[in-house]
Amino acid sequence: MRKTLAEWRPAVDEAIADLVPQEIDAEYLETFFGEPTYEYDPQGIQRALSDPLWDLLDRGGKRWRAVLFLVFVEAFGENPEAYLPYACIPEILHNGTIIVDDVEDEASMRRGDDALHHIYGQDVALNAGNAMYFLPLKLLMENPGDLPPERRLAAYEMLMYELNRTHLGQGMDICWHNERDVRITAEQYLEMCACKTGCLGRIVARLAAIVTDQPTAVEHAVADYAELTSVAFQIGDDILDVENSLGRAGEFGKEFGNDVREGKKTLLVIHAIRESEPEHAARLQEILAADTNTDEEVLEALSIIDDAGSIDYARDRALALAAEARESIADLDLEETAYEELQEFTEFVIDRDV
Amino acid sequence: MRKTLAEWRPAVDEAIADLVPQEIDAEYLETFFGEPTYEYDPQGIQRALSDPLWDLLDRGGKRWRAVLFLVFVEAFGENPEAYLPYACIPEILHNGTIIVDDVEDEASMRRGDDALHHIYGQDVALNAGNAMYFLPLKLLMENPGDLPPERRLAAYEMLMYELNRTHLGQGMDICWHNERDVRITAEQYLEMCACKTGCLGRIVARLAAIVTDQPTAVEHAVADYAELTSVAFQIGDDILDVENSLGRAGEFGKEFGNDVREGKKTLLVIHAIRESEPEHAARLQEILAADTNTDEEVLEALSIIDDAGSIDYARDRALALAAEARESIADLDLEETAYEELQEFTEFVIDRDV
Repeated sequence: MRKTLAEWRPAVDEAIADLVPQEIDAEYLETFFGEPTYEYDPQGIQRALSDPLWDLLDRGGKRWRAVLFLVFVEAFGENPEAYLPYACIPEILHNGTIIVDDVEDEASMRRGDDALHHIYGQDVALNAGNAMYFLPLKLLMENPGDLPPERRLAAYEMLMYELNRTHLGQGMDICWHNERDVRITAEQYLEMCACKTGCLGRIVARLAAIVTDQPTAVEHAVADYAELTSVAFQIGDDILDVENSLGRAGEFGKEFGNDVREGKKTLLVIHAIRESEPEHAARLQEILAADTNTDEEVLEALSIIDDAGSIDYARDRALALAAEARESIADLDLEETAYEELQEFTEFVIDRDV
Repeated sequence: MRKTLAEWRPAVDEAIADLVPQEIDAEYLETFFGEPTYEYDPQGIQRALSDPLWDLLDRGGKRWRAVLFLVFVEAFGENPEAYLPYACIPEILHNGTIIVDDVEDEASMRRGDDALHHIYGQDVALNAGNAMYFLPLKLLMENPGDLPPERRLAAYEMLMYELNRTHLGQGMDICWHNERDVRITAEQYLEMCACKTGCLGRIVARLAAIVTDQPTAVEHAVADYAELTSVAFQIGDDILDVENSLGRAGEFGKEFGNDVREGKKTLLVIHAIRESEPEHAARLQEILAADTNTDEEVLEALSIIDDAGSIDYARDRALALAAEARESIADLDLEETAYEELQEFTEFVIDRDV
């Protein structure tokens, strides 16, 4: 029986538990990390690595990076079960970036609970997040798919290419966040998204292509699909934050306009500042740069964005990116059901809850 | 003319500048990170990556990981100049861990100036530190030494093995730091050092062996040398902190006993708690666990360590490790001058300033 997307989740979690068990013992450490020279402290590794990792995973998440990897494998006409361990690679990388990003952004909450650095301390959280950058890369050495050396090297080189760009994207995002003025272009914003969010999507797609030995052209096509979809989703997020905020603004006690409060330079903001009358643009800039804002000020900023037609502009760009994503895999020879799932996936860019 | 150890430093810095220039432009970004899909922001990358990296490097540091790599290459009878770019790999990794460790430890100072997260903000510093984990790994793709695919794969697999253990070591260290009691054994402390500090040394040695295509037995022998020397140096650090503190304790206004103030569970502390009378052991434990201590209390802790013979114990172990390091490469067929430098290097484990 073919698994639905949701049915993959328990299998993915089992594969992650094979990589990092909920209970750490000396035998696991010796098997996975190699013989100690002296003596491991399993209790310490339990607290430093397994506890924070599973705390985060147990809070939920759809594991969609892992699932998308498996859909790609299926689309290439291969059996997803045979490549299940590799699905952990983008999933653990993604959860690692969440932990590190939360420290960088000084976030207080994550998936409905305290951010990990508030529970385990910044030191443990950060080290666990960073360990989650390297744990999945070691999995390639275990070679569960019995890949020939050239495929393993291709996977490493792909990962190094994409993970370097991830840090470029995060670097741009952080830098802009710390600047007062909105000096960037829409194209630079899209590049930031393509690097920061898109590269993890590209890892999902390219890894599936590499482990199943697809031609280079196919690998590039699915990478384009994944990058375009990721960027479209990010713009969708930006739109939803503004739209939901405008809808919620009258409701007493509801938090709204988070992106404006954080001073985020989203595609909508970049467009609104470029297209608004100078005094409105200056006012929007001022509200974004302020340390704190009243609800009225946040609403004023949201109205300037709305009046500039920035929601429609961003929606058009997101939908165009999603269409481009569908187009990029349209000519490939992919298994039919999986292909349809990939096409449908891009439809949720705008039409989704929260 | 053969370069002395100190003469390598400018050449190493030039090689690092080839990897990450002091001035970032769009051309560099396209060449090193690949074509942008949209448009890079060189100014943002300048601030997010190059500025913090070069700020740290320009503060000094002997680049000894890079230099040691070059000495190994020479010891294997190869020309170090030909492999100079690879010397950047352990050096940038090391400086990346410094930035991240300083965030984790909430350090205020680094190399005589404010720690980087105090200057650039925690977000920029952390992202730069993490980027420095991946930048050097991309250098392998550039393939400056024209390595065949199997050597590049061997380098990646080696790096993933060692970088995973680095995070195990840091995890144990952090975990112990957050615990009140000293529950660990001397062997677990040595393992932490072997993972946290030793693995970066092992990267230096193994990378030199891999790029010059040495037999596996040679790679293992130099890895042992590097690990043993690194652990011995760490113990040397622990000893110097206690010895210098005992020597400086009378001097007005001088900071002393840093490790005791930080509650570090060093090899000396582990030994002293095991070997002292129960009431002295309990008192040492109490002072280490306290949030703040008076100078008198720090001195009391140092005296308990001294009285337990823990300085001599630690020195004996460090010297034994250094001797073992020398022994591990004694039977290899190494170039004579470089071999002598490697042997001499282990002599500084104890006999050095600060």
